[in-house]
Amino acid sequence: MKTLALGLDFGTNSVRALVVDTATGKELATHVHNYRHGDAGVILDRKNVNLARQHPQDYLDGTIACVKTCLRKVHADHIVGIGVDTTGSTPIPVDEQGHPLPFKDPAALAWLWKDHTGFDEAEKITATAIKLRPQYLAKCGGKYSSEWFWSKIWHCATESPKVFDAAYTWVEHADWLPAVLTGTTHPDKIKRGICAAGHKAMFHADWGGYPEEEFFSALDSRLIRIRRTLPNKAYNIADTAGHLTDEWAGKLGLKPGIPVAVGAFDAHLGGVGSGIQPGTLVKIVGTSTCDMMVAPLSQKLPDIPGVCGIVPESILPGHYGLEAGQSAVGDIFNWFVRFSGESHETLTKGALKLRPGESGLLGLDWHNGNRTILVDQRLTALLLGMTLHTTPAEAYLAMVEATAFGARTIIERFEEYGVNAERLVNCGGVSAKSTLVMQVYADVLNRPMEISRSDQTCALGAAMAGAVAGGAHRNFASATAAMTGTHKKKFRPNAKHAAVYDRLYRQYRRLHDSFGGDVDVMKQLLTIRNEARR
Amino acid sequence: MKTLALGLDFGTNSVRALVVDTATGKELATHVHNYRHGDAGVILDRKNVNLARQHPQDYLDGTIACVKTCLRKVHADHIVGIGVDTTGSTPIPVDEQGHPLPFKDPAALAWLWKDHTGFDEAEKITATAIKLRPQYLAKCGGKYSSEWFWSKIWHCATESPKVFDAAYTWVEHADWLPAVLTGTTHPDKIKRGICAAGHKAMFHADWGGYPEEEFFSALDSRLIRIRRTLPNKAYNIADTAGHLTDEWAGKLGLKPGIPVAVGAFDAHLGGVGSGIQPGTLVKIVGTSTCDMMVAPLSQKLPDIPGVCGIVPESILPGHYGLEAGQSAVGDIFNWFVRFSGESHETLTKGALKLRPGESGLLGLDWHNGNRTILVDQRLTALLLGMTLHTTPAEAYLAMVEATAFGARTIIERFEEYGVNAERLVNCGGVSAKSTLVMQVYADVLNRPMEISRSDQTCALGAAMAGAVAGGAHRNFASATAAMTGTHKKKFRPNAKHAAVYDRLYRQYRRLHDSFGGDVDVMKQLLTIRNEARR
Repeated sequence: MKTLALGLDFGTNSVRALVVDTATGKELATHVHNYRHGDAGVILDRKNVNLARQHPQDYLDGTIACVKTCLRKVHADHIVGIGVDTTGSTPIPVDEQGHPLPFKDPAALAWLWKDHTGFDEAEKITATAIKLRPQYLAKCGGKYSSEWFWSKIWHCATESPKVFDAAYTWVEHADWLPAVLTGTTHPDKIKRGICAAGHKAMFHADWGGYPEEEFFSALDSRLIRIRRTLPNKAYNIADTAGHLTDEWAGKLGLKPGIPVAVGAFDAHLGGVGSGIQPGTLVKIVGTSTCDMMVAPLSQKLPDIPGVCGIVPESILPGHYGLEAGQSAVGDIFNWFVRFSGESHETLTKGALKLRPGESGLLGLDWHNGNRTILVDQRLTALLLGMTLHTTPAEAYLAMVEATAFGARTIIERFEEYGVNAERLVNCGGVSAKSTLVMQVYADVLNRPMEISRSDQTCALGAAMAGAVAGGAHRNFASATAAMTGTHKKKFRPNAKHAAVYDRLYRQYRRLHDSFGGDVDVMKQLLTIRNEARR
Repeated sequence: MKTLALGLDFGTNSVRALVVDTATGKELATHVHNYRHGDAGVILDRKNVNLARQHPQDYLDGTIACVKTCLRKVHADHIVGIGVDTTGSTPIPVDEQGHPLPFKDPAALAWLWKDHTGFDEAEKITATAIKLRPQYLAKCGGKYSSEWFWSKIWHCATESPKVFDAAYTWVEHADWLPAVLTGTTHPDKIKRGICAAGHKAMFHADWGGYPEEEFFSALDSRLIRIRRTLPNKAYNIADTAGHLTDEWAGKLGLKPGIPVAVGAFDAHLGGVGSGIQPGTLVKIVGTSTCDMMVAPLSQKLPDIPGVCGIVPESILPGHYGLEAGQSAVGDIFNWFVRFSGESHETLTKGALKLRPGESGLLGLDWHNGNRTILVDQRLTALLLGMTLHTTPAEAYLAMVEATAFGARTIIERFEEYGVNAERLVNCGGVSAKSTLVMQVYADVLNRPMEISRSDQTCALGAAMAGAVAGGAHRNFASATAAMTGTHKKKFRPNAKHAAVYDRLYRQYRRLHDSFGGDVDVMKQLLTIRNEARR
């Protein structure tokens, strides 16, 4: 009899279910369900480009739809465990039972990772932490982001006090979904994952968990009430959130009582699904990019400026988890397809004919801000070098290159601080689809690019957590060996191209360091823009 | 009987003939002939984006074609004089009779104004002049351009010595064409205009005409031979180049013996056709922009850094002529139409819905370098502030705004040095066609924009020179009063928009001053690009 595990992977636009053979990693059934609300699942506000929300009902409807479809192909009784990954930080305000609030206000929905409405709050959190608790920031790259838990909650307190007052507490999507499946949404019962808590909510054992009340007094005393609803313990993915309720077993067509692993973010479980281990940098290259590394808890790790988080056991049990990333990658290429009216295929074909440096173009890949190493969501993109002869294919290649330079900035930062990337494994949609992007990355980073065997490493990582929770593997080392791998074909750097890209990268760093530093032109423009839109 | 004058206006892609009533300025007949060779009249080289040449035969064929067409509408006997304007600096290597060389080599063609192959030579001329003859540079903005006479001739000596050796001398298109019509192409007979000589070839009475031989010895002694073919006198447009030969009268269907005025550049005669006088800045807004002003010879004028030229009588007799300009304006908008695949109409419609500052975008209008005030053809364009939501219409508006900021930089420079623009008169294709552009200019410059009554002020200015040559007016003041005017409708600044643009302009100047100054990223990219293209 086969032993199967189910992974549920909640993305920005859809949810995917994946059923995997725990002995081989073979993917036996998968289905994607697109969210129904908003613009491809994202609820936007024309008047406020920073706003991005999701409807929690989409998570539930999507889970049912895609699990049921998978069960047409595999036998439900073979599934021994469930794992869950989601985007993050995507917190949801909930009532005393852990249920979403029944308000029409978009503030009552899930605050999607790319919601940047809490920018001012993030700035104030950073400023306050620098003064009162610099240690909080040291674990999250030196700057608290508008994408994260407390920025969003505090912004809600200011902008939508009715919702804020009605919310008993706030729960990350990654914690909420396993709690729903296992009937543990009650704030006293829910197990909050170390991944979300440690990377996004300044949770750390050094100060006994979430930030101290004194810190919130200095920010806004209304936040103390929320702080008091949070436990002092967080769990890793080797822990079990609970067991599938009869109600949800019925809805999904699964056996009741199956263990559900503690949830984590998509990137973290994507790292797991790509076979992450010390010395391997896993790049999840999709709409945005996450760069994941692990280091044994026994290694003495310094804080690394600009790296979003260094959190014990946030990726693999027994290891530090390190998370860096680029706020937009595939999103930039998709934007440019809309902007230029030309297809990825046409643009790629044109770009493949160009030699590095030939276009004279250079870009900054900040269309959605810069997550690592500048940690500044208010940065915007730049393209330089246009002439009257510049073509869309040249601009497209310049954007691919810009994201590669951004990737290089991240790896160089890791290595400066002694976390070396001996191997680079790529996963995610862009790495699977674009040989152009992967070859440019190999040339710019001057290292071979390996591609994860699975096209859906996040869901695979979630299924691996399900496999461990269900006892099919005693630990993640065993699950990794059995269930992950890379394609034979690697993208190898072209030495001549790498030499040109070394020179271009130096120019990129000049632009990066000045516009990311003292030359605040982009922020001045945002100020003017925000006033103009009023 | 009506007294008519003929203007011949040689542009980048075509030649226009215009027949005007000298008493009223009424335009009675006009025809445009597109050049036959190259890409819309411009001969390019895929391997060298800096190269731009024209075939002199196109000038002759075009003259015949468009004059003959005009003569279907007006009586040839009523035409009393001919004036000529051309692009510049567009020098032609010629033999001892003043005829173009019969070589296949593109070096033997006319070196069009926008040919930048002589960039290195321009740099060396500037460096040498700084050391030996700083006064030469003071009259042309402090920097000798790759677009100009000596840069091109010297580049030819290096790159195409066969052509250089075969050329007896070099003649500006503006001087050559009147000489052809009047049979005075022989180097001893040809009258060279002060406009080309003074603005592009460092001719000035202060040092007895063209640069001294000692200067050429320091550059490249091969140039001395060319210098010796040049006279020590130059003429203004009130002078007559000669009289129409029987041969050309026959070809054109005109009376033999009609006086032909000394030629000048299109922008200068466009200024005349727009009614230029002290206190009036004439902006010729087409593919590129020229900003023309005059000041009485009695006014004590300082040298103005970055202004391409301050030359006595180069525009109007009795006045200093001042010429500044932007290397690309309409060309940028046309490029972006090709780039985005959307029409001017669609982009304009979208741009008109935007409030200033709303897009968060800011650009540098250097797609073809910067003529004034940086005098640096190796600069390239920049666009900053893109997000994943940026639309082509927003980018289009940002480019219109960037050209307006570039225009403001020029006016501010003029006024800093005491040449005040009390009135702004626009002419040229873009000013006639785009209310978007004119309104943005009014808002950014915070002044009313007047539009010249004629759609073809360069040809009108040429016809005015013909009218003066033919005795229909005793001087240009009389011709200006009778033959020029502006439309009633002016574009008036919106105070609210002007305030936002003041803030954006400050950011523009930060980018302008750094990328046009010490931050040499654009030039580093060009170096890399040029190596990549080898």
